[in-house]
Amino acid sequence: MNLDQYIRLMLPAVEEELKRVVKDGVSDEVIGLRLMLSYHMGWEGEGAGLEAQGKRIRPLLVLLSAVAAGGGWEQALPAAVSVELVHNFSLIHDDIQDCSETRRGRPTVWVRWGVAQAINSGDLMFTLAFYSLNKLFLSGSPAAALEASRILQEACIDLTRGQYLDLLYAERKEIGVSDYWPMVGGKTAALLSAAVGLGALSAGASMERRQSFRKYGYTLGLAFQAWDDWLGLWGDPLITGKSNASDLIAGKKTLPVIYALNSDAVFRERWLKGPIHSEEVPTISEMLIKSGAKEYTEKEATRLTDEALVALEQAAQNEDGLQALRELTHRLLGRKN
Amino acid sequence: MNLDQYIRLMLPAVEEELKRVVKDGVSDEVIGLRLMLSYHMGWEGEGAGLEAQGKRIRPLLVLLSAVAAGGGWEQALPAAVSVELVHNFSLIHDDIQDCSETRRGRPTVWVRWGVAQAINSGDLMFTLAFYSLNKLFLSGSPAAALEASRILQEACIDLTRGQYLDLLYAERKEIGVSDYWPMVGGKTAALLSAAVGLGALSAGASMERRQSFRKYGYTLGLAFQAWDDWLGLWGDPLITGKSNASDLIAGKKTLPVIYALNSDAVFRERWLKGPIHSEEVPTISEMLIKSGAKEYTEKEATRLTDEALVALEQAAQNEDGLQALRELTHRLLGRKN
Repeated sequence: MNLDQYIRLMLPAVEEELKRVVKDGVSDEVIGLRLMLSYHMGWEGEGAGLEAQGKRIRPLLVLLSAVAAGGGWEQALPAAVSVELVHNFSLIHDDIQDCSETRRGRPTVWVRWGVAQAINSGDLMFTLAFYSLNKLFLSGSPAAALEASRILQEACIDLTRGQYLDLLYAERKEIGVSDYWPMVGGKTAALLSAAVGLGALSAGASMERRQSFRKYGYTLGLAFQAWDDWLGLWGDPLITGKSNASDLIAGKKTLPVIYALNSDAVFRERWLKGPIHSEEVPTISEMLIKSGAKEYTEKEATRLTDEALVALEQAAQNEDGLQALRELTHRLLGRKN
Repeated sequence: MNLDQYIRLMLPAVEEELKRVVKDGVSDEVIGLRLMLSYHMGWEGEGAGLEAQGKRIRPLLVLLSAVAAGGGWEQALPAAVSVELVHNFSLIHDDIQDCSETRRGRPTVWVRWGVAQAINSGDLMFTLAFYSLNKLFLSGSPAAALEASRILQEACIDLTRGQYLDLLYAERKEIGVSDYWPMVGGKTAALLSAAVGLGALSAGASMERRQSFRKYGYTLGLAFQAWDDWLGLWGDPLITGKSNASDLIAGKKTLPVIYALNSDAVFRERWLKGPIHSEEVPTISEMLIKSGAKEYTEKEATRLTDEALVALEQAAQNEDGLQALRELTHRLLGRKN
C-alpha cells in the first residue's frame, strides 16, 4: 500500500473514533458543551466540513508508525485519537493566548463562546485525550497503557514549557538562535515525537526501536517548524495560503529573523525600532537574504530533514510503513513552494 | 489518633510531596514557569505561607479515607497530591473565567502574569496531576493505577461539565432548583467523591465499599455547597471572612436565591430587575427568610449532611479513620456560625 491508500483507509477510522470519544465523553445534558468541541473539530456549526477539520497529520503519524514498527494500525487507534485531542486542546487554548480570531477559516472557539467557555472546553478536550487512551487501552496490557499515558503526559509537560517560552519571547526584544530550538522542541517536536513513539509502542516495539522512532518524530518536528518559518517569508502564498508579509508584520521571531538579529547590525537596528510596515517587507526580506538568514534556515531545515530520514530508516521494520512515512516526510518537509 | 493528630502527621507529608512533584515536573530551564505554580500553591512570592496555601481538605479526605478503609495513609499520598493538583488547576482557570483578582488574600495568577501565561500554567498543573498519579503508582499494580486515573479523569469531565453549567447560568436570568444540583455535583461534589474513592482504592477496598465511600464524598460535596451558600447570606462575617452582602451584590445564583426565585413573586420581580445594591441587602435577606428560602436551604443541607454521615458509617472499616472523618465532616458542615 502507498501513502494515499493508507490515508484513505486510516483517516475515516480516525474521524469515527474521535467522534465516538467526544460523544461518549460528553453527556447529552450538556449538549452545548459538546457542540463547542464538535465545532472546533470541524464537525458541526457553520463552515463544518473537511476544510475545517485540519489535516490530522498527528494521528496519521501514530498509525503509520505502528505499521512501520511491524504492528497493525487498528491497535494504535486509541493513541492516534489521544494525540489529535491533545493537539486540538492546545489549539483552543493557543487561540485564546494569541488572540487569534480565526482558525481554518472559521471564528475560533473563544470568539464564538467567549474566553471562559473556551478555556473550559479546552480543559475538557484535554481530559478526554487521556480518558480515551486509558479507557481504550484497558483491553490491552495495563502496563503498556500506563507507559502510553506517561509518554503523552511528558509531551504535554513539554508543550506547556514550549508555550511558556513562546509567550515569554513575544515580550522580549531579542532572543538567540539557542533560545529558538527549546521553544520549537516543546511547541512542535515533542508531540510529534510522542505520536510516533506511541505508534511504535502499540506495535510492541522494543524500547531501543521506540527511541529511534522518537528521534525521527522529534527531528521531523524541528525540521517542520524551520521550513514553516522559511515558507512564511519565501513560500508561494498561493500554496501556503498566507502572505509573505504576515509573519514580519506580526513581529514573529522566526528562525531567519533570529539569525539576522544576531548577525546583521543593520537588520537588528531596524527590528529593534518597532513594528515592520507592509511597504517595508520587500526591503526587509532582501536584507534577510543578504544577511545569510535564508541560506542558514535552508541549511538547518535540510540538515534536520536528513537527520529525520536517517532516524526513520533505522527505526522502521516494515517496508510498506517505511515507504509511507518517507513519502509523508517528504510531503511535510519538501514544501519549499 | 484523633483528627488533629492526623492533620499534624499528614499535611506536612502532603506539602512535601506536592513540592517534589512540581519541582521534578518543571525543569530548571523554565524556572519562571515553575514560579507561577509555586506562587499559586502558596510557596513562593509575596504573601507566601500557610495562609496562602489553602486548607488542603481534599488530600486530607484521600488520606483519611485510606485509613478508614483499613489501609495505610502513606500509600495514598500520590492520589492525595493528584487530587490537590487537579483542584488547584481548576482554581487557576476559574479565576480567569470569573475575573477574580484575588485568591487567599493575594493577586491571582492571571493578574500577576497575564491571562495567556495563567491558562498555560493551569494546563501544566493539570498535566502534573495525572503525571504524578501515573508515575507514583508505577510502584504498585498497573491495573490499580489505571483505575485511579480513570476515577480522576471522570471527576475532571464532571468538573468541566459543572463549570460549563455555572458559566451558562451566570448568563441566564433564572434557573430552577433542579438545575442547581447537577452544577454543584460537577463543580464541587465530583472531586470530593473521587478523593475519598481514591483513598479507598489505594487501601485495596472492594468495589462495593468504594461505592459507599464515593457516596459519602459526593453528598458531603453537595452539603458543603449548600451550607456555603447559606453562610454567604447568614454566616458570621468574622468567621466566614466575607460580607453577607457580597453574594447578593454579585448576583450569585445560590440555593436560597434559586428557591425564592421560583416561589416568591415579589423577590422574583426584584431579582429580574437587575443588580442588588448594598443598601437593599437587609431587605432582600429578610425577603429570603420570609419566602422560606433560608429554612429550605437549612433543611436541604441538613438532609445531605445526614446522608453523608450515614454513607460514611457504612463505608468505614477502621474506627480511628471513621472517627477522624466524622470530625472532619462536622467541621466542614457544622459551620453555621
